[in-house]
Amino acid sequence: MFSVTVRDHMMIAHSFRGEVFGPAQRLHGATFVVDATFKRAALDADDIVVDIAAASQELNTIVGALNLRNLDDDPAFAGVNTTTEKLAQVIADRLAARVHAGAFGDNARGLSGIAVTLHESHIAWASYERPL
Amino acid sequence: MFSVTVRDHMMIAHSFRGEVFGPAQRLHGATFVVDATFKRAALDADDIVVDIAAASQELNTIVGALNLRNLDDDPAFAGVNTTTEKLAQVIADRLAARVHAGAFGDNARGLSGIAVTLHESHIAWASYERPL
Amino acid sequence: MFSVTVRDHMMIAHSFRGEVFGPAQRLHGATFVVDATFKRAALDADDIVVDIAAASQELNTIVGALNLRNLDDDPAFAGVNTTTEKLAQVIADRLAARVHAGAFGDNARGLSGIAVTLHESHIAWASYERPL
Amino acid sequence: MFSVTVRDHMMIAHSFRGEVFGPAQRLHGATFVVDATFKRAALDADDIVVDIAAASQELNTIVGALNLRNLDDDPAFAGVNTTTEKLAQVIADRLAARVHAGAFGDNARGLSGIAVTLHESHIAWASYERPL
Amino acid sequence: MFSVTVRDHMMIAHSFRGEVFGPAQRLHGATFVVDATFKRAALDADDIVVDIAAASQELNTIVGALNLRNLDDDPAFAGVNTTTEKLAQVIADRLAARVHAGAFGDNARGLSGIAVTLHESHIAWASYERPL
Amino acid sequence: MFSVTVRDHMMIAHSFRGEVFGPAQRLHGATFVVDATFKRAALDADDIVVDIAAASQELNTIVGALNLRNLDDDPAFAGVNTTTEKLAQVIADRLAARVHAGAFGDNARGLSGIAVTLHESHIAWASYERPL
Repeated sequence: MFSVTVRDHMMIAHSFRGEVFGPAQRLHGATFVVDATFKRAALDADDIVVDIAAASQELNTIVGALNLRNLDDDPAFAGVNTTTEKLAQVIADRLAARVHAGAFGDNARGLSGIAVTLHESHIAWASYERPL
Repeated sequence: MFSVTVRDHMMIAHSFRGEVFGPAQRLHGATFVVDATFKRAALDADDIVVDIAAASQELNTIVGALNLRNLDDDPAFAGVNTTTEKLAQVIADRLAARVHAGAFGDNARGLSGIAVTLHESHIAWASYERPL
Repeated sequence: MFSVTVRDHMMIAHSFRGEVFGPAQRLHGATFVVDATFKRAALDADDIVVDIAAASQELNTIVGALNLRNLDDDPAFAGVNTTTEKLAQVIADRLAARVHAGAFGDNARGLSGIAVTLHESHIAWASYERPL
Repeated sequence: MFSVTVRDHMMIAHSFRGEVFGPAQRLHGATFVVDATFKRAALDADDIVVDIAAASQELNTIVGALNLRNLDDDPAFAGVNTTTEKLAQVIADRLAARVHAGAFGDNARGLSGIAVTLHESHIAWASYERPL
Repeated sequence: MFSVTVRDHMMIAHSFRGEVFGPAQRLHGATFVVDATFKRAALDADDIVVDIAAASQELNTIVGALNLRNLDDDPAFAGVNTTTEKLAQVIADRLAARVHAGAFGDNARGLSGIAVTLHESHIAWASYERPL
Repeated sequence: MFSVTVRDHMMIAHSFRGEVFGPAQRLHGATFVVDATFKRAALDADDIVVDIAAASQELNTIVGALNLRNLDDDPAFAGVNTTTEKLAQVIADRLAARVHAGAFGDNARGLSGIAVTLHESHIAWASYERPL
């Protein structure tokens, strides 16, 4: 199994609902360093997993739609806690939708899965992995 | 599949028995940067994998019981080489026992696995992964 | 010259005023990984720069007063942009005040300077350095 | 499942053929930080996954055969793009051949897989994983 | 003293002339992770050291002129070894020229110095620091 | 001012004497990731600060004399606490002695200073800097 990972980041404000979050129920924020991993069983004819320039661009567009915003104001997250693990899922699902829409080019047909890791600090991170 | 990881560390002395260890048979030491990963298939009602404050606290307690000690003197390790991979297993098993004892709260029932990575230097690390 | 550095972090919301900030004028947030460095010309009688446990505790207290908050609501920052470089200064000055108040113990008398670095992402950070 | 990882690096020149590579079709270069991971289900009698000194030495020999060279001149890569993911495969396969040749000693019989990750920068890396 | 640092990278081929370089006299390559630091004694009216977006853009332009190339073919480096330390100087000098040309805006008048660090691997890096 | 830094590491056991050290008075250990920085005002005729191969080798020899040992048994440290900051000084002084002994070759005559940083964990490190 092969994989290629590209890194980007976003800086957002948000708050959580639920006693389990303690003081994180207050409005606060985070820098999320975002790693998006693309997987496939065999390399394509160019000896690559995916066009890394396309992958970086698509990740940047998805992250850019969240960056420098208060996620509490985003209707896409109504009724949801924008936890690190939840945001990993959101970004992975949005990347998957772009793969299926053909945004990664023909060579992306062989992709079998996507994993997204969000680092919220030097001592905590979360991941979500899904098939394509 | 979702995962959340928290990081802590410990600074211990130990020695190894066996020719394969060469000069590491002498009493020496290590800083182990310890990453504990908790996995589950779906997020709970709060949109989290695990209460991250509880996870950090439990890891800190387990690591704290080893920290700033000579592991050669710990009866728990009699007859065992406290290699990086072995200590990863010990910490993962102790975390698993705490999950089963209910220390992570009700939302931890959905956890499916634990992985622990110990970094012994900038150029070497070891992991152990197990189901819950 | 000797130095000792300890690391902590905080996760805050804030916004900036001024055209130079572009989209960062919107409410957003950041994880700041905070490195506090203590400097002195010669080691004390215990062969240390500073009691590292005290240094970590003092940094944690100062960072904790900012952590998980919206800095736009903090009267201490009225009329100020809480940029990475400004926050580095604020934390350095608060640490310096604690040194002068004796919080680091007698052995801290020989400290000559403090530097604070805040990492806002994997690709940007800022520092402030001052004498004691 | 246990794993042990060791890190090395190499600094090479190369170029790519194919429109997908854009300006990377020109002769350029890369530092690859190389992580080689060895996996097995149970520890051996010494409580280790593999002799870490042997693993480091074997990785260093394989990386050394590529280091400080122009890969475009290496007959082993004729007709192949030496992408990060392709090189991860090459190094993993060469390590596997050495394991099968007995270079890691008797205790390596229990190894079940190898994974190799090449970091090409702070924002991109690729991996290849295979059974043994 | 305040500073702000931004990070970028470039992937180049080159070779060195001189016996001291040993096998690095062969054509090879490197990824250089490039950190550019801007220094000033006091913050400007916006509470910043420099417009970080402008700084990132200027660094990207300078690095982009070297990226994905064989530096042996660049007339700017005729008769010079493009060592890590030399390239740090080149990038710092080019950034300084852009500051003096007004590319960083009016708020850059207070800048007092620039430092550039190039990381050539996880175990080696070089820096050059100069006044403005 | 130019500088070049090389990284190595050592894994040692030790204990401290003095109430300020609390539980670290017990025998414990550490991995120290060691960064040695060499400084000079101008590059030599080869466009380098120092022969990086020689620098790496000299650092490795000095670190190797401490590695995989209990520093409490080393007569060189009688009556001294082998704190992170103290060990930084010891390594810097030993490197300086080697420079003065000619071990770095003729091109090392222009070196003006050495700095050594020891990382004891992901959240603490210490440095010592001295002229040559």
